[in-house]
Amino acid sequence: MPHTDQMNVNLATRLGEVAVCFERALVNDLAPVNALACHVERYRGKMLRPTLVLTTGMAVREGMVSSTSIDQQLNSLAAVVEMIHMSTLVHDDVLDEADLRRGGATINILRGNETAVMLGDFLISSSFHLCSSVGEPWLNSALGEMTTQLCAGEILQLSHRGNLTLDEATYFDIVRRKTGVLAGACCGLAAKLAGASATVAESLRLYGEELGIAFQIQDDVLDLVGEEQIVGKTLGIDLRKGKFTLPIVVHLARCSLLERAETIAVIEACDAERLIRLVESTGALTAARERARQLVEHAKGRLAVLSESRARQMLVEIADAAIERTF
Amino acid sequence: MPHTDQMNVNLATRLGEVAVCFERALVNDLAPVNALACHVERYRGKMLRPTLVLTTGMAVREGMVSSTSIDQQLNSLAAVVEMIHMSTLVHDDVLDEADLRRGGATINILRGNETAVMLGDFLISSSFHLCSSVGEPWLNSALGEMTTQLCAGEILQLSHRGNLTLDEATYFDIVRRKTGVLAGACCGLAAKLAGASATVAESLRLYGEELGIAFQIQDDVLDLVGEEQIVGKTLGIDLRKGKFTLPIVVHLARCSLLERAETIAVIEACDAERLIRLVESTGALTAARERARQLVEHAKGRLAVLSESRARQMLVEIADAAIERTF
Repeated sequence: MPHTDQMNVNLATRLGEVAVCFERALVNDLAPVNALACHVERYRGKMLRPTLVLTTGMAVREGMVSSTSIDQQLNSLAAVVEMIHMSTLVHDDVLDEADLRRGGATINILRGNETAVMLGDFLISSSFHLCSSVGEPWLNSALGEMTTQLCAGEILQLSHRGNLTLDEATYFDIVRRKTGVLAGACCGLAAKLAGASATVAESLRLYGEELGIAFQIQDDVLDLVGEEQIVGKTLGIDLRKGKFTLPIVVHLARCSLLERAETIAVIEACDAERLIRLVESTGALTAARERARQLVEHAKGRLAVLSESRARQMLVEIADAAIERTF
Repeated sequence: MPHTDQMNVNLATRLGEVAVCFERALVNDLAPVNALACHVERYRGKMLRPTLVLTTGMAVREGMVSSTSIDQQLNSLAAVVEMIHMSTLVHDDVLDEADLRRGGATINILRGNETAVMLGDFLISSSFHLCSSVGEPWLNSALGEMTTQLCAGEILQLSHRGNLTLDEATYFDIVRRKTGVLAGACCGLAAKLAGASATVAESLRLYGEELGIAFQIQDDVLDLVGEEQIVGKTLGIDLRKGKFTLPIVVHLARCSLLERAETIAVIEACDAERLIRLVESTGALTAARERARQLVEHAKGRLAVLSESRARQMLVEIADAAIERTF
């Protein structure tokens, strides 16, 4: 389908522009700062968040006269959200004492925790500076609120570390703040920049938020039954850090006192194979997967506010892909 | 002097308003986040940065019709700079593995490094959010640029850790970015908000920057010859972290190869008393003090753009106090 190809070509071109915008925003007159910024660019993966911004923008502007200035604003927003995401990765690696990211050594390992903390701060600051160049004051306020929520979500999660009685409502509150809010902002703010009505922008924000939560649940499932776990090597890093994932939360809520004690012993013994069998026995793994599937269906339903277009179709595909991936 | 008293009363009232603004901006719907925010409020010391904002604002507005809306904007800016300063304190404590601040245990000790990193991020984000509520888009841009410089300064300092050949120019570049830029922003941005011309605002920014650098040099001097060092207990924390302070930088540049080797041995042995004698022998301690004094004189000279007022007099007193303090 040449039509499909053109969309992918456009998106790839725009993502290239976003990468340039990202790099330019981090250029500094100090060599040690530039060296770190170059290292961080290697962290860039599939650019999921910029893709959400650009695709939402395209879907909203379907049928409108094209505008270079709006395209540039959307490119800047895409670079801003990627920078915020990257600052959380750099600080997460410090927290998790991670030594590898995307096949390369992490900053904390290469240059020490101090530099990694400062680099994360540098990225947050640069993202706010870049954001203020868009020339839409409401965007600064919205992004400030969003990152505040993101940090609050992390703090909430840390306060529940190792809490065996974490309930589903709190789990979802954490995940919404930590993952949902950023993906929701990508779509909601892109829609507003692109000229969508408040109702349409809110629907797209909810699309992003539900997609983000589904994405996290899939991460949780893979943390338990991902390839590395299936071959019995390691228990998921989340579990080892005392972060309870949805399958475990649902399982602990469903099981008897005896099964509960057994589960805790198995977690402490880091026995992934037995843990998977236990979590499957109460149907908790299936329930978690089902919950992610429902969220994706909800998210896709939110797209009904948009007219039919290739960009809208791509948003559907992104939602489906969130729970179909195995890595 | 009742006139003097009135200025102090006004300032104290305004600082009280700033504290309320600060607290309100950190209120969150999550209990664990509020608990941390309350802890951070205990870090609040003399509120030097808010005092610079408010006093500069008062000095600029001397003789003008009073404006509640401008006063509120200045209060918000004062809370914003205090929040940025506090976020740097929280992250510095993680970097320095500090266990005490203002007589209480640090967040990193009480709640772990993870929570401290996240709390710092929460404070940065909240400061940007609060800043966007002032309703002056240029302020978002200026603060984004300022915090980016601040982080760049920290990264530059980390890249020179333990560098025995650190030259004076690089030392001043680090200190300007780390300390000067924030104090400069307090005065320059407050002046602009208060309605000063670009020339007056720039003079006041330079006043703040020079004051900030002098303040840091005095810290450096106290790190070496402060009361705790004089009684021979500990060598300054900066030196132990491989951060070279101005007296040491000047001393190493002045001394012979033999004295240099001796100095390094004395630093490694953490012998504060001998180090002080060595640094005094080359006149480096006197030179550092003299440099701080010159900066304070320069800073005071910048105030000539302001008409005579009690607020201007207070800015003179703040500058003098920066190098007269012994703690």
